[in-house]
Amino acid sequence: MDGRPIGVFDSGLGGLTVVRQLLRRLPGENIVYFGDTGRVPYGNRSRKILHKYARQDCSFLRSKGVKLIIAACGTVSSVVPRVLEEQPVPAFGVVKPAAAAAVRATRSGRIGVLGTSATIHAGAFRRCLLQLNPQVQVFEKECPLFVALVENGWIGREDEVTRLTARRYLEPLREQGVDTLILGCTHFPLLTDIIADIMGGGVTLIDSGQAAADACVERLAQDNTFAPPGNSGRCHFYVSDQPEGFSKIAGMFLGQAIGEHLHTVDLELPAPMAGEDDETG
Amino acid sequence: MDGRPIGVFDSGLGGLTVVRQLLRRLPGENIVYFGDTGRVPYGNRSRKILHKYARQDCSFLRSKGVKLIIAACGTVSSVVPRVLEEQPVPAFGVVKPAAAAAVRATRSGRIGVLGTSATIHAGAFRRCLLQLNPQVQVFEKECPLFVALVENGWIGREDEVTRLTARRYLEPLREQGVDTLILGCTHFPLLTDIIADIMGGGVTLIDSGQAAADACVERLAQDNTFAPPGNSGRCHFYVSDQPEGFSKIAGMFLGQAIGEHLHTVDLELPAPMAGEDDETG
Repeated sequence: MDGRPIGVFDSGLGGLTVVRQLLRRLPGENIVYFGDTGRVPYGNRSRKILHKYARQDCSFLRSKGVKLIIAACGTVSSVVPRVLEEQPVPAFGVVKPAAAAAVRATRSGRIGVLGTSATIHAGAFRRCLLQLNPQVQVFEKECPLFVALVENGWIGREDEVTRLTARRYLEPLREQGVDTLILGCTHFPLLTDIIADIMGGGVTLIDSGQAAADACVERLAQDNTFAPPGNSGRCHFYVSDQPEGFSKIAGMFLGQAIGEHLHTVDLELPAPMAGEDDETG
Repeated sequence: MDGRPIGVFDSGLGGLTVVRQLLRRLPGENIVYFGDTGRVPYGNRSRKILHKYARQDCSFLRSKGVKLIIAACGTVSSVVPRVLEEQPVPAFGVVKPAAAAAVRATRSGRIGVLGTSATIHAGAFRRCLLQLNPQVQVFEKECPLFVALVENGWIGREDEVTRLTARRYLEPLREQGVDTLILGCTHFPLLTDIIADIMGGGVTLIDSGQAAADACVERLAQDNTFAPPGNSGRCHFYVSDQPEGFSKIAGMFLGQAIGEHLHTVDLELPAPMAGEDDETG
């Protein structure tokens, strides 16, 4: 038993789709979410900047005493996974869980991957898929417009601009005959309907956020670190900026109002978090 | 005569469209450009964050000894203009020059404004237009997708996604019968063809970057601070990050290769710039 919270971070609000899955699967767990809305998006940053940001994000969550960290961010998971390996608590991203789910799901061995530019160029999904099964064939596609479209709320199944954009991105994957498609960015599940319409019924979509939530459940079971029974989980949300329209977008990702436990923090402030390395036990 | 450089900053690379105009108009001037590519985009940040960023951007340019600062960023110009007023050297944004050009151009008095969400919500173009001429009618439209479309290079005149997006944004303005339209973001001039096609030949487009370059020429003439004759101007470009694909996008905005005088700096480093307030003279 372990009453400490689960930590989840993302470049912005997309990672709330992971929190949404955690709330569904683990209603007794406390959750601390950090969304780096002041520095979003991560998808077009260099490796050096991403390394710095990811370390700050993890340090912040550790300062809140988390027992486990999920990088609900395809870019961090792909480009700077070593930051997660360095953490003194279990920490993982969305790449391995999604790759494992895809390898389990495919029948033809032809797997597609959608991601931001940084995620696709990093090639982490490809490497991980081939490690799990060297026989699979991987077809990758960067979809840089998807994040902007989702954040603008153009997610309706019939939205003509979003459908046209999705068709442009997905047509090559359809022609390659993939039977499994990883949504390698936590924003993309909000476009599931449109993506499914274009890919057709024979293609299994792997929601990388859901796969990460599943991996979290497994890890807590393995370590016997579930929250004590009867605990009613609390969520605390931290963001680095709250621009206009914030609540609406946050609610869209979380699937419910973000509520009162919302705080704004500035990770660039030179305030060392005392004792942040004390919770290795 | 004044051989010091002209300083230009923007949230990212869009402001290079202003440099492009300056190079054309003032080939003898030295220019220092700062693009905050590590923290782009500014368009969806809160006022508080924008205030901090704009002050850092101006301080950086002043540390390079500039004689004048152009905020080639619609968001900074609109949301935190006071930061520009505080500067010990002449400093202005894109709002006033563009508003003045629009008021000169309109015949019907019906003026449209396109901008990022932050720019439109700040209402600075509207206020400035009405100050210049209380008789004009202002019709504003936020176009949040345009920046992402431009940065993805989907700027071809026949690009179906960009045309469809533009039509969605512009149709209401066309119906309002505007005869002058301010492109209130330095990214938007790259969509001039598409915007002109939709608006039709009777509508004058005001490029806010070009208007800012014109205002710079006027100010240097007024203060008699042109570079000495015979000076061959040099450009130095500073950015806070250089992600993959950087050179291609930079070249697209600048209209030529960005060349060798390119440097990367980190404004978040706590390195106070000594003597930065000494150049008030």
